[in-house]
Amino acid sequence: MPDASPTKWHLAHTSWFFETFVLEGPPLDQSFEYLFNSYYEAVGPRHPRAARGLLTRPSLDDVRQYRQRIDERVLQQIERGVRDDLRARIVLGLHHEQQHQELILTDIKHLLGGHPAWPVYRKSPAPAAPARAGVPALEWISRPGGLAEIGAAVPGANGEPFAFDNESPRHQVFLRPYALASRLVTCGEYRAFMSDGGYRRPELWLSDGWAEISATRQHDVRPLYWRDDTLFTLDGGRPLIDAEPVVHVSYYEADAYARGAGARLPTEAEWEAAAATVPVGADDNLADSDAFHPRPVSARVGFSQLHGDAWEWTASAYLPYPGYRPAAGALGEYNGKFMSNQMVLRGGSCATPRDHIRSSYRNFFPAGTRWQFSGIRLARDA
Amino acid sequence: MPDASPTKWHLAHTSWFFETFVLEGPPLDQSFEYLFNSYYEAVGPRHPRAARGLLTRPSLDDVRQYRQRIDERVLQQIERGVRDDLRARIVLGLHHEQQHQELILTDIKHLLGGHPAWPVYRKSPAPAAPARAGVPALEWISRPGGLAEIGAAVPGANGEPFAFDNESPRHQVFLRPYALASRLVTCGEYRAFMSDGGYRRPELWLSDGWAEISATRQHDVRPLYWRDDTLFTLDGGRPLIDAEPVVHVSYYEADAYARGAGARLPTEAEWEAAAATVPVGADDNLADSDAFHPRPVSARVGFSQLHGDAWEWTASAYLPYPGYRPAAGALGEYNGKFMSNQMVLRGGSCATPRDHIRSSYRNFFPAGTRWQFSGIRLARDA
Amino acid sequence: MPDASPTKWHLAHTSWFFETFVLEGPPLDQSFEYLFNSYYEAVGPRHPRAARGLLTRPSLDDVRQYRQRIDERVLQQIERGVRDDLRARIVLGLHHEQQHQELILTDIKHLLGGHPAWPVYRKSPAPAAPARAGVPALEWISRPGGLAEIGAAVPGANGEPFAFDNESPRHQVFLRPYALASRLVTCGEYRAFMSDGGYRRPELWLSDGWAEISATRQHDVRPLYWRDDTLFTLDGGRPLIDAEPVVHVSYYEADAYARGAGARLPTEAEWEAAAATVPVGADDNLADSDAFHPRPVSARVGFSQLHGDAWEWTASAYLPYPGYRPAAGALGEYNGKFMSNQMVLRGGSCATPRDHIRSSYRNFFPAGTRWQFSGIRLARDA
Amino acid sequence: MPDASPTKWHLAHTSWFFETFVLEGPPLDQSFEYLFNSYYEAVGPRHPRAARGLLTRPSLDDVRQYRQRIDERVLQQIERGVRDDLRARIVLGLHHEQQHQELILTDIKHLLGGHPAWPVYRKSPAPAAPARAGVPALEWISRPGGLAEIGAAVPGANGEPFAFDNESPRHQVFLRPYALASRLVTCGEYRAFMSDGGYRRPELWLSDGWAEISATRQHDVRPLYWRDDTLFTLDGGRPLIDAEPVVHVSYYEADAYARGAGARLPTEAEWEAAAATVPVGADDNLADSDAFHPRPVSARVGFSQLHGDAWEWTASAYLPYPGYRPAAGALGEYNGKFMSNQMVLRGGSCATPRDHIRSSYRNFFPAGTRWQFSGIRLARDA
Repeated sequence: MPDASPTKWHLAHTSWFFETFVLEGPPLDQSFEYLFNSYYEAVGPRHPRAARGLLTRPSLDDVRQYRQRIDERVLQQIERGVRDDLRARIVLGLHHEQQHQELILTDIKHLLGGHPAWPVYRKSPAPAAPARAGVPALEWISRPGGLAEIGAAVPGANGEPFAFDNESPRHQVFLRPYALASRLVTCGEYRAFMSDGGYRRPELWLSDGWAEISATRQHDVRPLYWRDDTLFTLDGGRPLIDAEPVVHVSYYEADAYARGAGARLPTEAEWEAAAATVPVGADDNLADSDAFHPRPVSARVGFSQLHGDAWEWTASAYLPYPGYRPAAGALGEYNGKFMSNQMVLRGGSCATPRDHIRSSYRNFFPAGTRWQFSGIRLARDA
Repeated sequence: MPDASPTKWHLAHTSWFFETFVLEGPPLDQSFEYLFNSYYEAVGPRHPRAARGLLTRPSLDDVRQYRQRIDERVLQQIERGVRDDLRARIVLGLHHEQQHQELILTDIKHLLGGHPAWPVYRKSPAPAAPARAGVPALEWISRPGGLAEIGAAVPGANGEPFAFDNESPRHQVFLRPYALASRLVTCGEYRAFMSDGGYRRPELWLSDGWAEISATRQHDVRPLYWRDDTLFTLDGGRPLIDAEPVVHVSYYEADAYARGAGARLPTEAEWEAAAATVPVGADDNLADSDAFHPRPVSARVGFSQLHGDAWEWTASAYLPYPGYRPAAGALGEYNGKFMSNQMVLRGGSCATPRDHIRSSYRNFFPAGTRWQFSGIRLARDA
Repeated sequence: MPDASPTKWHLAHTSWFFETFVLEGPPLDQSFEYLFNSYYEAVGPRHPRAARGLLTRPSLDDVRQYRQRIDERVLQQIERGVRDDLRARIVLGLHHEQQHQELILTDIKHLLGGHPAWPVYRKSPAPAAPARAGVPALEWISRPGGLAEIGAAVPGANGEPFAFDNESPRHQVFLRPYALASRLVTCGEYRAFMSDGGYRRPELWLSDGWAEISATRQHDVRPLYWRDDTLFTLDGGRPLIDAEPVVHVSYYEADAYARGAGARLPTEAEWEAAAATVPVGADDNLADSDAFHPRPVSARVGFSQLHGDAWEWTASAYLPYPGYRPAAGALGEYNGKFMSNQMVLRGGSCATPRDHIRSSYRNFFPAGTRWQFSGIRLARDA
Repeated sequence: MPDASPTKWHLAHTSWFFETFVLEGPPLDQSFEYLFNSYYEAVGPRHPRAARGLLTRPSLDDVRQYRQRIDERVLQQIERGVRDDLRARIVLGLHHEQQHQELILTDIKHLLGGHPAWPVYRKSPAPAAPARAGVPALEWISRPGGLAEIGAAVPGANGEPFAFDNESPRHQVFLRPYALASRLVTCGEYRAFMSDGGYRRPELWLSDGWAEISATRQHDVRPLYWRDDTLFTLDGGRPLIDAEPVVHVSYYEADAYARGAGARLPTEAEWEAAAATVPVGADDNLADSDAFHPRPVSARVGFSQLHGDAWEWTASAYLPYPGYRPAAGALGEYNGKFMSNQMVLRGGSCATPRDHIRSSYRNFFPAGTRWQFSGIRLARDA
């Protein structure tokens, strides 16, 4: 899987990020610039992504030492005092590291999930839901049309909190009245879609999606990590639980499911306008709850699962907001250059650190991506 | 080139379209359903696109006869009188045929342009511009922000004229004040971008675009059909003329050029709000002017070349408008199912029939596409 | 199919061969050197093989004119008298042309056979065998061991007749006593192999062959041009006839069939030592019999079908004979440089001109090749 | 590199071989049958070769335990006494393990050699030759023609020593008088071939080889592990030494070098007939000398380096000997099914265990293979 990297690489790369963009002076090891640069063209050439798994050197111990030394230097720098621009880079480095914390989990899951024996990563302290857990009916929550404001103000300008450059500027969009589903689509509902021939009805599918499942129709017409009635999680394999949200579906699957349900996916503006009314809560299922798997919604009024559980595919392509300005220099490559052929996901997942997510956060992946905790929330016109 | 088809196939396919969606009764030849269906899954299986060039049967004569018989039957049907829904399908069939008229020209151009001797398709009655023709300076024309209305009303509802389903419904969008370039980017300007190292500066490129030119850097870092200082046109090879608009560039090239110029591409809403003020004119360079190549702008005030000359890449992904409803049945596959991984182009080209284009018209191709007459108009924030 | 070429290309290429290697003076058209060179690196760069089907120019008429002019010049040259080396090149050019006569038939067959309607190339004057024709039982004909002489003497040395350079020098090989089957394997016998699970028993297959059929197992585990119980021939589609020799099998299929039958394929030395005793006969089914399809053996004593009907896969890789010397210059590329990753076939087929074949003739193709008239003769140790 | 496997896999696979083919009773772990079967179709399905590097489970410790338990059981079995057929399988298992000992070294070399920093595997006790070491001139040693006997008798029949089934039966071949080079081609000689434009002269190359280097000409027209004037060895990177034998060349490179030198590669029969006169000697550079790199020849009369230093590409395709019989059952897959599209190498290398090699030993790899210690010995007609 060319998109996944070994944990060792993630550890080294996030430290390299601090070394390159925060620390001054020569690098600790010249070769790390080549090995642990992910995609910054302005910094120089880099090791091919797909070959990261073959890096026998430096060893894990060496990477840990490297990490410790970088950490110490960054702390020293902070103690000596930092200018505003450097402070912004340190904060960016921390958020960058949180992104890789999520990737470490999804990459490990992909590696173990590809092993025929489905090895256990670790046993979750929170046991899975009972097999026959119920789930509240899906409700449609109406939202008004008109002008809405979305996005994050440019950070720092007036003491604004951190946001990635791709979330800014804050700007107006015109919405039609619409309705959002109160919760995520469940495994049980997705199973009904499958039984109903969902993967055999071309009228439900985007052409690219149909081509993709036609090529793999023999063996893979179901979410990633499903095998008959069992499911691979970071706790190992276990039976599918109908009440849990479906995850590890592609944009194509999410879109086809929505069409089959007589609905559609929300745009990112529709999603954000609604989610901005629901702050990230203590009981949202994010990485800090240590379950590393989405869980069934408990009965409650209004929206559930907007933050945490699963990234929600939106109907919006990943494109610059009006007035978008990437950061100067190599850090300008962080987000802007990926703005083609990707779709936006919103809301964070069970692998996202709690203080990393916010309603303006824009995640993005190509439409066929499935190894992230990606799920489905339905929308429809009012 | 898997995207291009032989002229014989286009001739048969457009007739098949009428036979399938307009005529009643059994098909003239059962096998044509398989051979000349382009992508309608609901109609049945079809011949693989990339193998269209290998169809030795039916012969061109047989296809012409088939075409003539279908034409006769459609005319008979019209003379007998047609219901409203059938009338709408006949009109759709005519617009469908116009799209293939443009494709016939671009597919022939691609076939001849790949021949080492660059054969002449036919000599244009209008000679090319003088080699040293001047071109008016690019002006920035300001446009106001606020709510704008774009898109076409659903045709037929109130005697509304024809539009494809993907142009509707007419709807409001919120725009920031912006400015559009008065004319297309010229070959001379594009040549300056190349001399200035445009293809060697990663900071100008989207990541996908950089990957594409990196893979082909050895031999193809220039627009399609350029070879040193010469150019292939349907008139054959001839010297590049700086004053002519650059065409046959990909979205990646258009986007990189714009970034290098300190500008950006317009969104489709920005483009349409401006173009709606400029009706398609008698002197616009569309297929009817029979030049089959874009020509230099003549000095004039205000916008030039909005319709005709070259399709203009926009910064908008091809996605459904709010409230979009595809047609029912197999015709619903016409547009909607292609709404992923494509970018919108606007305005028509020198190969587009004059009565086929309008300011709400949405063309769409993947970002790497170059065999259409695709060019560049710049935009910037006000 | 990258291995097949349009007939127009064959016509032009065989004339180009005479122009390049026989005629003196400048070429009639400089561009033909690029377009119609098949693989002679020493002559210069050439048009990519897979793109031959896209050569719209020169037209068929132009190629015919070119051909006529080259023919005239070669005749003039002959009338003026030719030196020995030139005479050898003219003879080579004629044999080269005969090879392309066979390829024209097999390439057309491949093109038409890939069309869903299986168009008829032309109706054979000789009707196919009766559906229930019988076939004589396969006999094992014993052959002695010891030193045998195979290969052709270097032509011209002592008035030796023409042979390609890869057939020489004539040399000794040591053989063990062996037996050869009296005739080719039939469609009926091959069908029994299929019914017996031949394509599902890995122990019968070379690893490369098993990989190949595993990749295509869903749809192609049968000889090329078979579809259920029907068969595509140059006469069009018709029922399979059990008594006819099986053709269009790969080396892997031939080898697996032989293993399933408790036998093996002959080496080329074993084959030639036997075939040298059976001259090409007037009733052998070669191209001159105008059937363009193999036919059932008629009862007779001794070997049948050694020459004609089907090329016979041997167990020998295509490698140089001891003492082999390729011709000097570009003509040295004719055979020698292909001596890797190919297997030898012997005996000629129903598409081979009668005066082109001889018992020392070495044909060669990669092990997976099926679009030639390739069949199976069994051998075994004595 | 799909051909290389992790050391952990080699350790487990060689134990699995004993468990499967020697021990009776149920397997220690059912899943190992799937994970550590290399290619025995008759044993059942298996883990894809290219995904071996992703097997995080079992851990190295678990594999070592597994290995120890299998070793113990085999020893117990031996102590209890073994029938002849079982004894033959144990001996086969040991030779199989020796093959993997060599592969462990070449696979590690490939992994480290692909790392940009060229990490050291371990420092050899024997230092490399002096940079300016001389080397005796290449001598041509004549060999007579006539009938020769090569191959190994079927083992066990009359107390015959072990040999793989592909070495038998012993049989006669007819040879023309020939000459073999006294030693391997050196790096200095190969460097001269490169300076002389060897990689740019198509007339020296087989067509398949020319296609291969044309595709990679930009960056790889030199032996594997060469970078400018430095060389990667298991001791790490160091300067090239002209006196050392060239290794890590493909068959195509060996063949082109030979043609450039006015010579050719020996057939395997020519090689064996000569090598059978030179027993494996105590000073041959095999794995036991612990250098893991070929070394310059020291002055001596007659043949040098026939055994050890480098596997020598022969001009012979890997095909069955006359009368060859593979073993019964799954072990019959050991050698026979690979007899297509591979070339024979002879003589063993600096990574081959001393008691594993003999003059009848047939190694085989596809013509493009370079990660083995493969070198060049020249031959010519007398």
